[in-house]
Amino acid sequence: MLDRHFSKHLPRNPLNVLWNFLILLATAWYGFSVPIAFALKLDMPGWTQLLDITLSIVFLVDILTVFRTPFLNNNEVISDPVLIRQHYVKNRLFVDFIGAIPWDVIILLTLPPHDLSPHWIALTRLLRTLRLFRVPSLVANLRKHTGNAFVDAIYLETSKKVKMSLMFFWVMIGLNTIACGWILVHDSPAKDPVSIYIQAFYWLIVTVATVGYGDITPQNDMSRLYATLVMLVGIAMYGTIIGSVSTTIANTNAQKQRRRDKFAALADFMKRYDIPLKTQNDIFQFYEHSLRDRISLATEILQELPQELQREIDKYANLFMLRSVPFFTQASHECLMDMVSCLTTTICSPREIIIKAGDSGNEMYFLFHGEVEVLDPQGHQLVRLRTGSFFGEVALLKQVERIATVRAITFCCNAIIFL
Amino acid sequence: MLDRHFSKHLPRNPLNVLWNFLILLATAWYGFSVPIAFALKLDMPGWTQLLDITLSIVFLVDILTVFRTPFLNNNEVISDPVLIRQHYVKNRLFVDFIGAIPWDVIILLTLPPHDLSPHWIALTRLLRTLRLFRVPSLVANLRKHTGNAFVDAIYLETSKKVKMSLMFFWVMIGLNTIACGWILVHDSPAKDPVSIYIQAFYWLIVTVATVGYGDITPQNDMSRLYATLVMLVGIAMYGTIIGSVSTTIANTNAQKQRRRDKFAALADFMKRYDIPLKTQNDIFQFYEHSLRDRISLATEILQELPQELQREIDKYANLFMLRSVPFFTQASHECLMDMVSCLTTTICSPREIIIKAGDSGNEMYFLFHGEVEVLDPQGHQLVRLRTGSFFGEVALLKQVERIATVRAITFCCNAIIFL
Amino acid sequence: MLDRHFSKHLPRNPLNVLWNFLILLATAWYGFSVPIAFALKLDMPGWTQLLDITLSIVFLVDILTVFRTPFLNNNEVISDPVLIRQHYVKNRLFVDFIGAIPWDVIILLTLPPHDLSPHWIALTRLLRTLRLFRVPSLVANLRKHTGNAFVDAIYLETSKKVKMSLMFFWVMIGLNTIACGWILVHDSPAKDPVSIYIQAFYWLIVTVATVGYGDITPQNDMSRLYATLVMLVGIAMYGTIIGSVSTTIANTNAQKQRRRDKFAALADFMKRYDIPLKTQNDIFQFYEHSLRDRISLATEILQELPQELQREIDKYANLFMLRSVPFFTQASHECLMDMVSCLTTTICSPREIIIKAGDSGNEMYFLFHGEVEVLDPQGHQLVRLRTGSFFGEVALLKQVERIATVRAITFCCNAIIFL
Amino acid sequence: MLDRHFSKHLPRNPLNVLWNFLILLATAWYGFSVPIAFALKLDMPGWTQLLDITLSIVFLVDILTVFRTPFLNNNEVISDPVLIRQHYVKNRLFVDFIGAIPWDVIILLTLPPHDLSPHWIALTRLLRTLRLFRVPSLVANLRKHTGNAFVDAIYLETSKKVKMSLMFFWVMIGLNTIACGWILVHDSPAKDPVSIYIQAFYWLIVTVATVGYGDITPQNDMSRLYATLVMLVGIAMYGTIIGSVSTTIANTNAQKQRRRDKFAALADFMKRYDIPLKTQNDIFQFYEHSLRDRISLATEILQELPQELQREIDKYANLFMLRSVPFFTQASHECLMDMVSCLTTTICSPREIIIKAGDSGNEMYFLFHGEVEVLDPQGHQLVRLRTGSFFGEVALLKQVERIATVRAITFCCNAIIFL
Repeated sequence: MLDRHFSKHLPRNPLNVLWNFLILLATAWYGFSVPIAFALKLDMPGWTQLLDITLSIVFLVDILTVFRTPFLNNNEVISDPVLIRQHYVKNRLFVDFIGAIPWDVIILLTLPPHDLSPHWIALTRLLRTLRLFRVPSLVANLRKHTGNAFVDAIYLETSKKVKMSLMFFWVMIGLNTIACGWILVHDSPAKDPVSIYIQAFYWLIVTVATVGYGDITPQNDMSRLYATLVMLVGIAMYGTIIGSVSTTIANTNAQKQRRRDKFAALADFMKRYDIPLKTQNDIFQFYEHSLRDRISLATEILQELPQELQREIDKYANLFMLRSVPFFTQASHECLMDMVSCLTTTICSPREIIIKAGDSGNEMYFLFHGEVEVLDPQGHQLVRLRTGSFFGEVALLKQVERIATVRAITFCCNAIIFL
Repeated sequence: MLDRHFSKHLPRNPLNVLWNFLILLATAWYGFSVPIAFALKLDMPGWTQLLDITLSIVFLVDILTVFRTPFLNNNEVISDPVLIRQHYVKNRLFVDFIGAIPWDVIILLTLPPHDLSPHWIALTRLLRTLRLFRVPSLVANLRKHTGNAFVDAIYLETSKKVKMSLMFFWVMIGLNTIACGWILVHDSPAKDPVSIYIQAFYWLIVTVATVGYGDITPQNDMSRLYATLVMLVGIAMYGTIIGSVSTTIANTNAQKQRRRDKFAALADFMKRYDIPLKTQNDIFQFYEHSLRDRISLATEILQELPQELQREIDKYANLFMLRSVPFFTQASHECLMDMVSCLTTTICSPREIIIKAGDSGNEMYFLFHGEVEVLDPQGHQLVRLRTGSFFGEVALLKQVERIATVRAITFCCNAIIFL
Repeated sequence: MLDRHFSKHLPRNPLNVLWNFLILLATAWYGFSVPIAFALKLDMPGWTQLLDITLSIVFLVDILTVFRTPFLNNNEVISDPVLIRQHYVKNRLFVDFIGAIPWDVIILLTLPPHDLSPHWIALTRLLRTLRLFRVPSLVANLRKHTGNAFVDAIYLETSKKVKMSLMFFWVMIGLNTIACGWILVHDSPAKDPVSIYIQAFYWLIVTVATVGYGDITPQNDMSRLYATLVMLVGIAMYGTIIGSVSTTIANTNAQKQRRRDKFAALADFMKRYDIPLKTQNDIFQFYEHSLRDRISLATEILQELPQELQREIDKYANLFMLRSVPFFTQASHECLMDMVSCLTTTICSPREIIIKAGDSGNEMYFLFHGEVEVLDPQGHQLVRLRTGSFFGEVALLKQVERIATVRAITFCCNAIIFL
Repeated sequence: MLDRHFSKHLPRNPLNVLWNFLILLATAWYGFSVPIAFALKLDMPGWTQLLDITLSIVFLVDILTVFRTPFLNNNEVISDPVLIRQHYVKNRLFVDFIGAIPWDVIILLTLPPHDLSPHWIALTRLLRTLRLFRVPSLVANLRKHTGNAFVDAIYLETSKKVKMSLMFFWVMIGLNTIACGWILVHDSPAKDPVSIYIQAFYWLIVTVATVGYGDITPQNDMSRLYATLVMLVGIAMYGTIIGSVSTTIANTNAQKQRRRDKFAALADFMKRYDIPLKTQNDIFQFYEHSLRDRISLATEILQELPQELQREIDKYANLFMLRSVPFFTQASHECLMDMVSCLTTTICSPREIIIKAGDSGNEMYFLFHGEVEVLDPQGHQLVRLRTGSFFGEVALLKQVERIATVRAITFCCNAIIFL
């Protein structure tokens, strides 16, 4: 059935991951090395031709795997091989194919060397960088965890780590390409290729960071136009990077900052009115607790869901908490699901009476979080219960009066089971 | 009647559009070429004089067309020719007229060449740039779509594309003018006009981007003052551009980001509590659906409207949706308007029972969005209905019990017609 | 009585304004000229000594006027001369006095010229810049309009124009002072004082705008430290100016932008669902109207006031609107105040029936804004009433049925008087 | 009992504070001096060896004190010496210990000088900078005020002054270290160590402020890479500093700005509708009052607390206000706590009647803030009461009618005691 089919996170095929990682590495290798070799007019050593042929085969095989990878269309998972093939042939096959063929090797092997200038051969190598169009889907493949492509896509889209890594990758590709362009239009006094590259990269950073020492400047109209373009792009890049970094920091810190501001206002207020230290401690603890735990978060997000889904989520969340109580470690899944259906959660503040001796009641309590004390009728502490304990179980079994008072020591989160 | 008069978007007169586009091009030509020619002391070739005379006639004819263009005054459309004439003569006729006359050609043709220095003739050419004041209304003319100038103005004002194009145009005009000013105050070592212009533009970008290589620097007090001014303007420009770009990105991304943040919080939450994949999929789908569709948007905006307008808008929105149901493609406009008045929309979550066999009811359902299944009394799926289907129509015709259960498969948006 | 005492805005004494303006000018003169003369070691021509003595007398007289100016202390207006004197003597008298005395003139006149080096005399002139501490109160004096110093202070504090002018003044004073400091630590190759100053100011702007051409750079450790300091200040200044400018723009545009965004969302929505042009126009007009008029603003701000103050403000606001109705131009203040007490305002949407023929009613309507039409029983328009009209007055005089229907054409804001 | 144990803020041990301050100074000394001495290859004079040995002993003793300092783990205060020891040994003891030992002195004293190059000895000195890891806890120690480490941590975390000082300290340490790195990779033409350091620091600021004069630029590949790195860091630093400064300003000014905007909107509104000056004054005063006082703040923060804590805080806040009334200066703590339990606070607007002569009532009033007037039956003012007064006390003692009317003059905050 559908439910079962989706009910487990699929184990990632380690071979699959390795394969995708390999292709990603090869793509990055071409993305960086091809523009550098072109700009510095480096001779390709023999082993690179071997590597080219090997990787071309790998790339061609990779194209075949795409024919079997489901894709998302309009939020629907398409896994029909025919539809996948149509979609791929129409959209990206051509670009992938052009980028996979080692044109320069083919030319070198098929034509006599004097028929084509080395310049043209170098140009054909640039076609390799078309492989970069495949990076996003490779990254997506590396992260494929569950059996549902839609859920995967959302997990991937919301992952900060992936987003940051990809941004870093593209920024480095971009900087490398721009630096190579500068090598082409600027006559560097240096002779050593490494020095030329370092100076070009140094010039680029000096420019886009708007430092502009002026020790390396364009000397002709062509390079001036290139520098002008880089500066215009540099303004935008600089602004965008500062903007997105600050936005990311702002988004990350927003909740933290709001919490700290509230703490600061609260601390000021309590200092001014000379609130006793014990009460201050209680109040700070409450804030810590309510801000960290699921209570506030769940409330905020779940409110917008339709009733039915809310109930379903609540069920699983309670199930998760019940499992953390030692009492239930041995209980079967079915038993726990039954219990969950007659369970509600409450939160108590310190010194609040949870059970009063002499009252009648038919609930049992599980302490999900916090500490309570059991008091005898004279108010002396009999025992202290911590997270994971349970109490009030007598009333669940026989209809008797509560025999002891239970009082919260810290803020508590209890699950109550009515029978 | 008024309603009919406004009920169709007016077809744009292609000749009118062409005419306005031509004038816009001519204005841009003068906006860029006149300062460059003045700064580089270029001789005007013979064909430019012909062009000047031709375009002057075009500009004078254009002034006449303004006499017939309605304008907005205090949110009211003024189309009375007399009022239009008064308004135009008082506000902008003089500037338009000065900018339309080819003063330099007139001077060259009427006065003997030795009476006036070429410097003065070049100065009179600068008056041509006054035509730039006409750009905003030309842009507005190019976009005139409907018969209501007020609605047009709002569509134009809220159009991001137009705003961006205009901003780009003015920034380019400003950069060109400042670069020409630099050519006037700075003695460039280059001799070729193209090189001089490239160096001036290069210097300008180096300066306003705050790169400041220092390979081209002011050499006298006059050019130092000019550079100081440019830097002060540059600070403001740089800040404003970065600010407005980041504000634009922020505004565009705000809703997207909020949605992604919610997804991220939800994904975290569901991962932590180990919610089954099927439920996760349902919940993500619901979010996608409710965030993309009209439901949330309509709610937010329409709430602030007065009751009567809300009902009117609802009516037309429902009409639009009814037309998308194949069942009604042949229905007349009047028939549909009648149906709309006895129609309400609901949203159901997956596995929700919409119709229960055995219940009585007098509504009919149209599936605007989603999928439902029809079940026999034993709970076996009889048929699966998709977007655009209808069901429950038997109850509309005769007062019988529901004979089958209908259950939602995905989130559904139904229109219910009560009779 | 108290009410009458405060009931009129006091006329500004033109002599007083002129006096304060004169002192402000003299203060600005010293603020700019003294550092320049000190840095460039300019000789003071004879007429400046005369000016110094004259302005010193003016400054001393000005000190006397402060003894009579009420001041704000803890949000209370203090006008008691004794308290004013105490406050002034304790806080600012000493600084004002030191800055008012022409120490250099006194030294030159009393001591033989060879007793003190010119350097020391120039230093004493710097004390003149202490007058700058008086600028904020001079600006406050220039704006004194009403008889209530507290209300004045709030009007002054909330005035954007004053804030911007002051900021500009202080930025210019600061830039001038820093440029003069640079002249002192840097050996300029230029000889002409004007050139030296222009180069120093040019260097300063090149530095704080972070352009950094590098054509003028510090040549010794002293000037390097000075430049380092200027750069650290420059970072802060640059950031603060960009920040405050963008904050100011953001604050100014916030409401505009939100309105435009709503319009854009609305325009998109209405285009998508193909809402008739007439309805679109109605809805846009409603937004324009409700966003521009007092209705939304008043609601937002006044809600936070206590009941009693709300009623008082409403009273005066209605009084203001009643006065705009031609019918009441001749009415006495007392009569209008009476009417206001039995007046409420409503808003109607287009085509809403305001009065229905045949109904009974005892209200009269004044049209503060918009248009209505009076219809005969057959629904034909009898007359069209515009802003400032009134209707329903018959029912106010005799208890009869409504004889005509009144329907809104546009959105209307009516005042209803119940008797 | 627990309550008493926490009920007083602990007096800070002055010796303890001095000790921590001393260690902080010693740490800062090493943080700055060690990199400078290493980069400039300065010889260590004899007295520094003595200082090193002395401070090493101090540092070792300091390590012992850490064994007795409670720490926070998961928001719980751990004061058990055994747990503290385990935690410290596991986490930071090694680093602290390495940084405390004077390795260079030990090497110099134990090995013959020719066995190790001075380069290696200088390198071992760098280990001293490991002491910087101890700075955060030293700062925390310096601020230890109360007996509750958790409350202390929150006070420390929310303290803007501490945050700013620490940020400044780390920025200075970072700039110094980067400048020393530049000295190592760049061959400065200067010979004097002070000049070399000033030029390196000057270069650093020129670079990170993105000024980039270009008078000091990297001359070889090594220094170009270093400069590239500094620029990349510089971009981030510059952006972060500008960002955090502007965020800090924004956070600080947010409430101020919102208040000023409201004032501006209110001032505009009242000017437009010509509200009498007296009413304007009242309304502005009310805003000042309600924005400054506890009323709005308390409402906002306390709403989120659970009922029980809210009551507790209210109790202490009222107690604090009761103590400010002169009438109660002599009252015992217990008596005041009793009164607090039957006390509520109200706010009245000007001219509001608080007590009406002839009414019956059994409350007594304390004026926490504002002014009231007592009127005789004819409405003449009998007496004027200011902040700290009380009235209506007769009704508290015997059940009689109110004998005088009390009316608010300004906005008042009263405590009412019902008996």
